[in-house]
Amino acid sequence: MTREHPDGGPGTSYPVVPVGRVESPLHDRDAAPRQGDEDAPEAWLAFGAAYGPALRDLAPGDDVLLFTWLDRADRTRLTVHPRGDASRAEQGVFSTRSPDRPNPIGLHRVRILAIDADGSRLHVSGLEALDGTPVLDVKPVLGDIADR
Amino acid sequence: MTREHPDGGPGTSYPVVPVGRVESPLHDRDAAPRQGDEDAPEAWLAFGAAYGPALRDLAPGDDVLLFTWLDRADRTRLTVHPRGDASRAEQGVFSTRSPDRPNPIGLHRVRILAIDADGSRLHVSGLEALDGTPVLDVKPVLGDIADR
Repeated sequence: MTREHPDGGPGTSYPVVPVGRVESPLHDRDAAPRQGDEDAPEAWLAFGAAYGPALRDLAPGDDVLLFTWLDRADRTRLTVHPRGDASRAEQGVFSTRSPDRPNPIGLHRVRILAIDADGSRLHVSGLEALDGTPVLDVKPVLGDIADR
Repeated sequence: MTREHPDGGPGTSYPVVPVGRVESPLHDRDAAPRQGDEDAPEAWLAFGAAYGPALRDLAPGDDVLLFTWLDRADRTRLTVHPRGDASRAEQGVFSTRSPDRPNPIGLHRVRILAIDADGSRLHVSGLEALDGTPVLDVKPVLGDIADR
């Protein structure tokens, strides 16, 4: 099957641009919890000043989906031992949540605990992302979309 | 607060690489349903042959999170009229699901209906993404992560 797409074929890529950064006590991938529900610490999201308008309707108490770029991931891995456990058979990364995958986009459900006075920093609940991780996007949670 | 990150400061970007493409009867953004639960059609996801190992543990019946790159979005928009309704006040994009946003990553919950014989094409339920949309990633659904 031959198909043509206006944006090009194989080899095309698109640049993602960090809109902010995670500030977290987590610095070491090997010590970080693997998911946000496993005792992950609170963190701050520090957004670039330009993104104030995009953030302005978020409020403390909101549950949101946070998208990050897992910049310390291995993008060449297509299979992994689940949860890094070498005793388990390797599994295709698309059926795991391993950070190691072709496009290491992190997806995290977090609650906004507080927003600082100028609106550019969000304090959020349990986040397993490492300090310095680029933030790409914030969206309302799935299932709460009827009026968005 | 001054912080340094090893991967650079403002201006850094990262390339996302399509691992596949959406094949859908939807060609026109204005006519497309806004969310997958609003009568979106079935679609095929055609993956590059190199990604077979990453896909190999997916099976028909699985519910997955599909990540796409909404390549026809306007990345300069920070506020939008919700659901494109000009009678509604503009809202910051991070509290909407508008495709127009700084990093137009699409998130779609879909069910795998079938997988073709060579394992590189997935037939999926209700998907609102347009034909040709790049596919970036597939992950298990949130909440089903205990053993991943």
